[in-house]
Amino acid sequence: MISIAILGATGYGGVELVRLLSRHPGADLVYLSSETYAGQPINAVYPHLGPVSLPLEPLDPQRMLAAEVVFFALPHGKAVEYAPLVREAGHKVVDLGADFRLKDAALYQEWYGFEHTHPELLAKAVYGLPEIYRESLRTAQLVAGPGCYPTSSILPLAPLLRAGLIEPAKVVIDSKSGITGAGRTSLKLEYHFPEADEDVCAYNVVAHRHIPEIEQELTAAAGQSVQVSFTPHLIPMSRGIFTTAYVRGAEGVTTERLLDCLRAAYAREPFVQVLGDDRLPHTKATQGSNQIHLTARFDARSGVVKVFSALDNLGKGMASQAVQAMNIMLGIEERTGIDAASIYP
Amino acid sequence: MISIAILGATGYGGVELVRLLSRHPGADLVYLSSETYAGQPINAVYPHLGPVSLPLEPLDPQRMLAAEVVFFALPHGKAVEYAPLVREAGHKVVDLGADFRLKDAALYQEWYGFEHTHPELLAKAVYGLPEIYRESLRTAQLVAGPGCYPTSSILPLAPLLRAGLIEPAKVVIDSKSGITGAGRTSLKLEYHFPEADEDVCAYNVVAHRHIPEIEQELTAAAGQSVQVSFTPHLIPMSRGIFTTAYVRGAEGVTTERLLDCLRAAYAREPFVQVLGDDRLPHTKATQGSNQIHLTARFDARSGVVKVFSALDNLGKGMASQAVQAMNIMLGIEERTGIDAASIYP
Amino acid sequence: MISIAILGATGYGGVELVRLLSRHPGADLVYLSSETYAGQPINAVYPHLGPVSLPLEPLDPQRMLAAEVVFFALPHGKAVEYAPLVREAGHKVVDLGADFRLKDAALYQEWYGFEHTHPELLAKAVYGLPEIYRESLRTAQLVAGPGCYPTSSILPLAPLLRAGLIEPAKVVIDSKSGITGAGRTSLKLEYHFPEADEDVCAYNVVAHRHIPEIEQELTAAAGQSVQVSFTPHLIPMSRGIFTTAYVRGAEGVTTERLLDCLRAAYAREPFVQVLGDDRLPHTKATQGSNQIHLTARFDARSGVVKVFSALDNLGKGMASQAVQAMNIMLGIEERTGIDAASIYP
Amino acid sequence: MISIAILGATGYGGVELVRLLSRHPGADLVYLSSETYAGQPINAVYPHLGPVSLPLEPLDPQRMLAAEVVFFALPHGKAVEYAPLVREAGHKVVDLGADFRLKDAALYQEWYGFEHTHPELLAKAVYGLPEIYRESLRTAQLVAGPGCYPTSSILPLAPLLRAGLIEPAKVVIDSKSGITGAGRTSLKLEYHFPEADEDVCAYNVVAHRHIPEIEQELTAAAGQSVQVSFTPHLIPMSRGIFTTAYVRGAEGVTTERLLDCLRAAYAREPFVQVLGDDRLPHTKATQGSNQIHLTARFDARSGVVKVFSALDNLGKGMASQAVQAMNIMLGIEERTGIDAASIYP
Repeated sequence: MISIAILGATGYGGVELVRLLSRHPGADLVYLSSETYAGQPINAVYPHLGPVSLPLEPLDPQRMLAAEVVFFALPHGKAVEYAPLVREAGHKVVDLGADFRLKDAALYQEWYGFEHTHPELLAKAVYGLPEIYRESLRTAQLVAGPGCYPTSSILPLAPLLRAGLIEPAKVVIDSKSGITGAGRTSLKLEYHFPEADEDVCAYNVVAHRHIPEIEQELTAAAGQSVQVSFTPHLIPMSRGIFTTAYVRGAEGVTTERLLDCLRAAYAREPFVQVLGDDRLPHTKATQGSNQIHLTARFDARSGVVKVFSALDNLGKGMASQAVQAMNIMLGIEERTGIDAASIYP
Repeated sequence: MISIAILGATGYGGVELVRLLSRHPGADLVYLSSETYAGQPINAVYPHLGPVSLPLEPLDPQRMLAAEVVFFALPHGKAVEYAPLVREAGHKVVDLGADFRLKDAALYQEWYGFEHTHPELLAKAVYGLPEIYRESLRTAQLVAGPGCYPTSSILPLAPLLRAGLIEPAKVVIDSKSGITGAGRTSLKLEYHFPEADEDVCAYNVVAHRHIPEIEQELTAAAGQSVQVSFTPHLIPMSRGIFTTAYVRGAEGVTTERLLDCLRAAYAREPFVQVLGDDRLPHTKATQGSNQIHLTARFDARSGVVKVFSALDNLGKGMASQAVQAMNIMLGIEERTGIDAASIYP
Repeated sequence: MISIAILGATGYGGVELVRLLSRHPGADLVYLSSETYAGQPINAVYPHLGPVSLPLEPLDPQRMLAAEVVFFALPHGKAVEYAPLVREAGHKVVDLGADFRLKDAALYQEWYGFEHTHPELLAKAVYGLPEIYRESLRTAQLVAGPGCYPTSSILPLAPLLRAGLIEPAKVVIDSKSGITGAGRTSLKLEYHFPEADEDVCAYNVVAHRHIPEIEQELTAAAGQSVQVSFTPHLIPMSRGIFTTAYVRGAEGVTTERLLDCLRAAYAREPFVQVLGDDRLPHTKATQGSNQIHLTARFDARSGVVKVFSALDNLGKGMASQAVQAMNIMLGIEERTGIDAASIYP
Repeated sequence: MISIAILGATGYGGVELVRLLSRHPGADLVYLSSETYAGQPINAVYPHLGPVSLPLEPLDPQRMLAAEVVFFALPHGKAVEYAPLVREAGHKVVDLGADFRLKDAALYQEWYGFEHTHPELLAKAVYGLPEIYRESLRTAQLVAGPGCYPTSSILPLAPLLRAGLIEPAKVVIDSKSGITGAGRTSLKLEYHFPEADEDVCAYNVVAHRHIPEIEQELTAAAGQSVQVSFTPHLIPMSRGIFTTAYVRGAEGVTTERLLDCLRAAYAREPFVQVLGDDRLPHTKATQGSNQIHLTARFDARSGVVKVFSALDNLGKGMASQAVQAMNIMLGIEERTGIDAASIYP
């Protein structure tokens, strides 16, 4: 049994970690932090957890260090403050936030507005996308859990870029997200039920923080600089991201070649389903699980390759992917404690 | 490993059984029937199942008899046709339909419009509500899975009737159900998204088939005849039933006495949460799990006791409760293969 | 043209008044107050209003007095502060809040927690339910707009009580409301989209402020004291209230007699649709309009009369009903400026 | 008073026409056809219409010819069959379908699978987008009502193409539609509430019939051939289309220049709101009205111009836009009978 701490256990990502790890046969939850609800058992705040009655405690570095693996589900800029302590103690870190995702420290100032105080850790952190970095994850001490939009964009696009089936020049990504993506703590008018219900809108339309992360990983896949034009939208549902990407197809591309490439890339992946040319992804089919469904089409009229993916932003887009990365890092069977099947309908 | 057949595997109840039993460590799914989709693997019909690729086959009594436990998730009147064969083969039956719920065979003609051809089995069938019939379930060969509305009504009301805290005379039950309750196969206009979205309505307002079932069980609890006035409503959501019942309180009743009674009744139940006087049930907190949340209040002004419950109609209201009953019947630890925590939000 | 002021123009009720009165051929909106948004044109806050660009101003008694009719859409306790000034100026008041709904001043202390400072106005105020108080409204100076739950309860029940078709003893009212009923300004976690979506819950289950209002009006209809047990529920939709009431039927009652009574009561009412025994109300069919749909059934098995109604809580439940009352008070044709047809689907 | 017929009055577009025209002061509805519901008053099928009790009749050319203006809200291929009769009778036609939208008859075979039997009418038909073809509409006899996706795409893009602010080469259009867009008559599993709720998906991803229509109009605006890559998505809501288009910006373009261009184009348009750089469209703000909200941004990093629009697919995307075109054709004030303000929230 590995002892585990979750910092920020009562955000939507944190509590999903609690749900998964509380029944993980190799995990022992020893410390859950919550500033807002310290002093209560977690199932008093979240009755859906049923019998899981672990206590919520204030953030305390000493308590944190008692765990062999520390998950950070805190606002940006917090993990970088505590992760060095955990590492010094010889323990492992999985950060669900952005603090270790970018390799270029200067990008933190540009996109997140803070100076990264531990740039030396950026090279050591492993980007927690098992389908791409599985080998590195096996020996990782510090995992940077990918963003939800990046996961939904990188997994369908990276193999096609790597294979040269699409042109790296200009990638347009249009994502549609459920409203859990906005988190739980900031009660803004735009997430008030009567405002968000029966509505679609776009937000952060020219500068979303996931852009440098997507570009970093697509550039790595393409072997040359990839520039992304990304636009997120809010959809009146709780969970799920549907991403549609538009790229120019390379000479001679066909739908069949796109699908063959994706199938080859993900043939042995337990959580990636490549859909054939008779089926398109649905976010609902990924609800509550660690699955991502993806496919691609070549629109011969316009020369555009369209790439589609669906996942659960709190699952493969966040918490269950983090558990998947942890399992790999700890040498546990990768699927342990993770839902392979979704809740439907 | 117990070999298991599911008849009607592609209705919403059937596929939820598949989801649960495909990962149940003691269960081996050997036969899934589907008239509509025979010939396809189930995850071609339901991609949310991910790697679960069992084949769907036509209904075939011989295939059915190959399994030690047969689950029926078929329209009313079908289980009664095949269950005797299964029993003759010495195998066990769990029916998710109504064919064995009522003890009085005459009620089938009155409420379901068919003559029950095996009334001798009604006495042998055990009503699959573990919190009430756990002991009988241990030796059962034939389990009648309770209806979703009855589960949501009986669990909060039965202990109060048994304790004499509420009067058995007139029980008003007002239930609010998500639209999976209407099933998947009948594509009616009233369940067409644009019609059902942003709407509440009532249906079957003076004669719903769950009435005799609720009355049978509440009468058993009260030790005297209980008559129910039941009204179901449709709510624009997929899963969940919220039941509000109105009963006259007995002399001297208080909210505290009601809660004490419920707490005592369910203190050791792994899937029943009795909420205190500072909290009310939410259907969302039971989504995807086998939980039922319930509580009660005494309205001193009017003398009315109000009883509240929330569950997932496909979970505790159907499929996971059936697995719970199966576990008991097979002597497996009761919680095996069942989600105790819900998916939230 | 009558000059009109709306105080609290940016709450959901206030802005619905703006929508209706801005196109009312006899109304001239001269003053809209909003503390939060003073200084902006209203369509900068609410772009759905399109070309309606009236300025929002701070609350100012002098500005208020410039209007011949003043609508109050303010929190409870505010209208009672300003209404006397308006009346002294010889102008008319329509209050959408509760300050003048109850005839017994003592009830304000008990249910609303404030001492009513102008009890002498309570006798003068006319309860703004045109179907019952049309004659009094013609000469009213001060209209108390009914609550949304009371409107949905009183209209179907009052004629049946008056006719003696149902027993006044114990009336159980179970209401299901969309989330606009919670207003716009208080951003509580329970109305955060991911929490309210796909959920049903009950709230204020033993003491909701609409109880004394419903009892006052049902008592008036019955000619004897009526006591109500009322329970509101939240439904994942924006607009609409569905009310189900349960009452004991009088000797000899039948569904046909109930329907005849309702049809006779509302035969000439432009906004009340009595549905026959082949149809039940749907909230969606009333969206955006001033309609209420209602019907009743006698459940002969249990002796219970079930009464059903659907309306839009911001329409007949609030703003358009207030305009209807204003029209009567001003001697304008009653339907002027009001939507008779709903938006569907 | 102009006598009006609506053929196909019980589809979602047809009944929205009934709602609008039944209260239009210059319109007299004399004939409503419905195959499914002939013999019933329309408010028996659609109770939301309240007092509008016009009879539904079978499709009958003679009855059709009794009206001065005939609206066709029938499946593709039907209007072309009857429109010539109406024209010979000297009456006017407004088609909500696609039969007269395309100027090139050959495209009907390619995209709609039928041979157009009256290609001579295509030149005579006026495309019913008032903001672009107002002058031609004044003398039109035959109006081709634009598609919902084309309206949402053409209005924001045409002025920018005309002004040369965006490059015509490759236009990517990503649209998100509510489910009323799928109509009412075809009860498919994918629109069954439990399947569509909490889901996003794409459909018709390489060949949607609105593509040639969008290309025709954007080509006209650009003065050179424009090719479109279009992808529609389904969103769990009833009404509304949100369109995001991605185009390469011309040399020197800025957000301010884009907005100036749009503002100049639509300064006098009663139903077009150009939002500034501090606000983005929301479908909900257009619900039930004839409004379209639109804006644009230049993403300097990628050189991509992003264009956003929101409308109600049954309003500006269909029925109210058709009434707007009719008003112009008949010389009635353009806004008559049309909602300028939306229902919110």
